[in-house]
Amino acid sequence: MIKNLAVIGLGSMGIGIAQSLLRAGWNVRGCDLRTEARAAFEALGGQSFSAPKEAAHNCAVVVCVVVNAAQTEALLFGPDGIAPNLPSGTLILSCATMAPSAASALAEKAEALSVLFLDAPISGGAARAAKGELTVIASGSPEAFLQAEPVLEAVAAKVFRIGDKPGQGAAMKMVNQLLAGVHIAAAGEAMVMAARLGLELPAVYEVITASAGNSWMFENRMPHVVAGDYTPLSTIEIFVKDLGIINDIARDMRFSSPISAAALQIYLGAAGMGLGSEDDAAVAKVYAQLSGVTLPTK
Amino acid sequence: MIKNLAVIGLGSMGIGIAQSLLRAGWNVRGCDLRTEARAAFEALGGQSFSAPKEAAHNCAVVVCVVVNAAQTEALLFGPDGIAPNLPSGTLILSCATMAPSAASALAEKAEALSVLFLDAPISGGAARAAKGELTVIASGSPEAFLQAEPVLEAVAAKVFRIGDKPGQGAAMKMVNQLLAGVHIAAAGEAMVMAARLGLELPAVYEVITASAGNSWMFENRMPHVVAGDYTPLSTIEIFVKDLGIINDIARDMRFSSPISAAALQIYLGAAGMGLGSEDDAAVAKVYAQLSGVTLPTK
Repeated sequence: MIKNLAVIGLGSMGIGIAQSLLRAGWNVRGCDLRTEARAAFEALGGQSFSAPKEAAHNCAVVVCVVVNAAQTEALLFGPDGIAPNLPSGTLILSCATMAPSAASALAEKAEALSVLFLDAPISGGAARAAKGELTVIASGSPEAFLQAEPVLEAVAAKVFRIGDKPGQGAAMKMVNQLLAGVHIAAAGEAMVMAARLGLELPAVYEVITASAGNSWMFENRMPHVVAGDYTPLSTIEIFVKDLGIINDIARDMRFSSPISAAALQIYLGAAGMGLGSEDDAAVAKVYAQLSGVTLPTK
Repeated sequence: MIKNLAVIGLGSMGIGIAQSLLRAGWNVRGCDLRTEARAAFEALGGQSFSAPKEAAHNCAVVVCVVVNAAQTEALLFGPDGIAPNLPSGTLILSCATMAPSAASALAEKAEALSVLFLDAPISGGAARAAKGELTVIASGSPEAFLQAEPVLEAVAAKVFRIGDKPGQGAAMKMVNQLLAGVHIAAAGEAMVMAARLGLELPAVYEVITASAGNSWMFENRMPHVVAGDYTPLSTIEIFVKDLGIINDIARDMRFSSPISAAALQIYLGAAGMGLGSEDDAAVAKVYAQLSGVTLPTK
């Protein structure tokens, strides 16, 4: 059984994935440029590296959990890229959220080197990553899925197998992010409008979560607004990035998407107010700022 | 015990309410201008009238289930309005979705005539109305609530008591409609973009309903798009009205609400395409029309 595996990128999701794989008995070689991320992973019992090439050495699976397509591309095919040195049949598991065309381009380059590629964007947040309970939305060849099986088993509670073409997983993840991003911004719009109308926010939360206006994101994020606690679980900048990709894709394929375009502007407004590193529920502060509403504070 | 009660407006919600009250043992006097609505109610065992004044005669409770604030105003205080003839202490239950200021203005006029007024917008749809399982979001005086209790008991599975000022119930309903309207439009945007990206719609439905992008409306309405069945349960025109009220309120109080503004444009586009009487899931057809996507048909 294959036991050597590299996780490149030990951010909040990457370190949880690495931890779940350690727990499952893999020999996990973690990689991050940041000293503190490497120290955190070593404290969990892992081996850590600053150079991806060293981390990937002798590994049958390389899990890429960096921020976006550009970082994944650089890591695999840049000047110090690891892909050309990977033995034939190695599996790359690509987890960053990216445009479908970016995922399929990376897969093509990997396949030209006889390396397997699974387009495998993830969702669920840091807490579920650490518990091995992520959702993975994956597409790729039957061979890639076969080799990924024990890895997915260790990191995910649910795997959606979308199809056999890399890019399909990325597309599905984008569609989910479109809705997630719009729903948080709409929740902020509704909560602050409710406050402006004189309604009590805890009552709004109680009524909406029991009504047809509810969304997964309203239910999950609006307690942060009610409590005035914007400790970041997922940041404003994540949706600047994801709705940015969605708007780019939409423009490229001449798809008019006015609602996600409006939502992106709210996240940009929040980031422009200096809230980029706060919890994404801080979109509510944009509405509060523009309406003179005072929201709860911790 | 009070047993005489009028239900003015026997549309899809009104007839269900009237039916639930009949079942609960009330002597229900239904009223509608349309002959077929009256015939339908008589077939259920009710008494029907075309003139509100006749229907309201000798009733201790008048339930107004007309379309909007203007119709409620005309019915109560217009040239043939019933309010001036109602005995002191009669209860008006006002169910139409309207601006908070409209609800509080109606209540003030009613109270000047010593008539009780409960601001009691409803949600849940025609099927739940007929079963007596609506959600009622109500505000008004303790006296109005007390007198309304047996009526609410008969028509609602859940009553949210928001406060003692008429208008608060209307405000809360508006906030729910803002989210509901945005979520359906966003669902249409996401589903058609998914189709444009080459994804299979049943797979999109399966993944999104199990993911953070889910909403009550996505889950409830998108099966109509997957099946290509736009038989109206709730129409496009309902959201032209409700998001229209929300945009009006927001403009009046200088509240910037770009996401619900964008959503309203989609419903207007659908209505402009001639789809006003189709199910509200037909917002998807606006996106399909603008992107060359062919959606499923029945």
